[in-house]
Amino acid sequence: MTTQQLVTEIHTKKSFLCIGLDVDLDKIPPHLLKEEDPIFAFNKAIIDATHHLCVAYKPNTAFYEAYGIKGWMSLQKTIKYLNNNYPEIFTIADAKRGDIGNTSSMYAKAFFNDLAFDSVTVAPYMGKDSIEPFLAFKNKHTILLALTSNEGAFDFQTKKINQKEVYKTVLETSKTWKNSENLMYVVGGTKAEYLKEIRKIVPNSFLLVPGIGAQGGDLEDVCKYGLTDNVGLLINSSRGIIYASNDKDFAKASLDKATEIQTQMSTILNKVS
Amino acid sequence: MTTQQLVTEIHTKKSFLCIGLDVDLDKIPPHLLKEEDPIFAFNKAIIDATHHLCVAYKPNTAFYEAYGIKGWMSLQKTIKYLNNNYPEIFTIADAKRGDIGNTSSMYAKAFFNDLAFDSVTVAPYMGKDSIEPFLAFKNKHTILLALTSNEGAFDFQTKKINQKEVYKTVLETSKTWKNSENLMYVVGGTKAEYLKEIRKIVPNSFLLVPGIGAQGGDLEDVCKYGLTDNVGLLINSSRGIIYASNDKDFAKASLDKATEIQTQMSTILNKVS
Repeated sequence: MTTQQLVTEIHTKKSFLCIGLDVDLDKIPPHLLKEEDPIFAFNKAIIDATHHLCVAYKPNTAFYEAYGIKGWMSLQKTIKYLNNNYPEIFTIADAKRGDIGNTSSMYAKAFFNDLAFDSVTVAPYMGKDSIEPFLAFKNKHTILLALTSNEGAFDFQTKKINQKEVYKTVLETSKTWKNSENLMYVVGGTKAEYLKEIRKIVPNSFLLVPGIGAQGGDLEDVCKYGLTDNVGLLINSSRGIIYASNDKDFAKASLDKATEIQTQMSTILNKVS
Repeated sequence: MTTQQLVTEIHTKKSFLCIGLDVDLDKIPPHLLKEEDPIFAFNKAIIDATHHLCVAYKPNTAFYEAYGIKGWMSLQKTIKYLNNNYPEIFTIADAKRGDIGNTSSMYAKAFFNDLAFDSVTVAPYMGKDSIEPFLAFKNKHTILLALTSNEGAFDFQTKKINQKEVYKTVLETSKTWKNSENLMYVVGGTKAEYLKEIRKIVPNSFLLVPGIGAQGGDLEDVCKYGLTDNVGLLINSSRGIIYASNDKDFAKASLDKATEIQTQMSTILNKVS
């Protein structure tokens, strides 16, 4: 998917919501556990209920790997279901991968070709040659961790290299990489006040913003500093939407929660357009 | 496995060799492609030929994920084969994972419980709460990226935070984390000269050292600065051993190559003991 297609979809739906499919068998409605593939059954119900309210889905690979082969089969079924039924949806493999060049190529192949995701999240620690193999894929997007939503972000990311925070150094350096136009960035929604500075470095890039909802980030604050002419934001909510209920009404509850967020987003988009 | 068991095994075999099982179907002997599971067939042959010469095997997960479900099945079969037949071998999932706390817990569960690896490599960018969930597992080892073997290591890892390189900051900070005694570190063999400084910060920790062989690192140099009283080194070779031949004699060729390295290691261990 091209960035322009994503932007068009955002305007059509008046939404820049991404729903995180972080499926934990201990948290889904118990009646689903008797399904042949409870994880996929859960995802399918959530997707069918909410697809018109969001522009992206983001399964975090950890939640699938934790269930071994079965988990990977659920992930594969989920991405196939999305690509076959809702091709207008932007798909994100939240995998946070990164390795030396020939190895990163294998990861890129896994997520872009084999699983056919539109994008994958990657970690910057190993530098340029660990990321460029992902950037080489046309119309695929590589979402680089910049400033994450967790407390541990303060351990290294906000420390200063020559008077400049590590995450800013990451942002600036990444712009020099080959095919850097295929980059997006992860910026935690719990750190909205940093967005002003971040937008000076990457004024037009799309930012994937987790941390709204369960982690405490605020949508209005993020939009205040993060919105661009092309919207430029994908706001993720996982637990707040998918676990809105763990009863038989779970899909309806996720619909309600997603509607609430999409309504807020629609108001924000109307204000700025 | 405890660290002491690993050290005992090193002295018994007079080897601190780790063999990287980075299986690429384009590189393995073509006659194996007609096997039902070519990746496992390849790994099994390499393991059977070399297990008495090394103390660890390290499959890099990228090479398995690139083949989708089939790849994960090959990985699962490989680790089961190792655990059932060679329980004295230290196993490393080279996965370079790391995510917010509840997500890292899922990764830890995937690699330590479901796949039953002894250790997993992790990336430090997201800080303390992304690593501590791994450290919570008893007799499991978390191998943190410190200074990697690739060129991209110079993009961020060797940059200075308050006069101290990022990788040194990572090493020092990680020592303050809960259960940090379960930490080992990745230090690239192409950067042997850095080991002197690294040993000042982590004098006794085990270091996993990739980059010997195909990537150009030198064994003698690494040992000169990296060896501890407890050896403290696992030297990895992947391509140099497993792709020593891509003909029907590939297992024998890997044996020869592993023997060559183990002989060097034995000489080094005899010198210092």
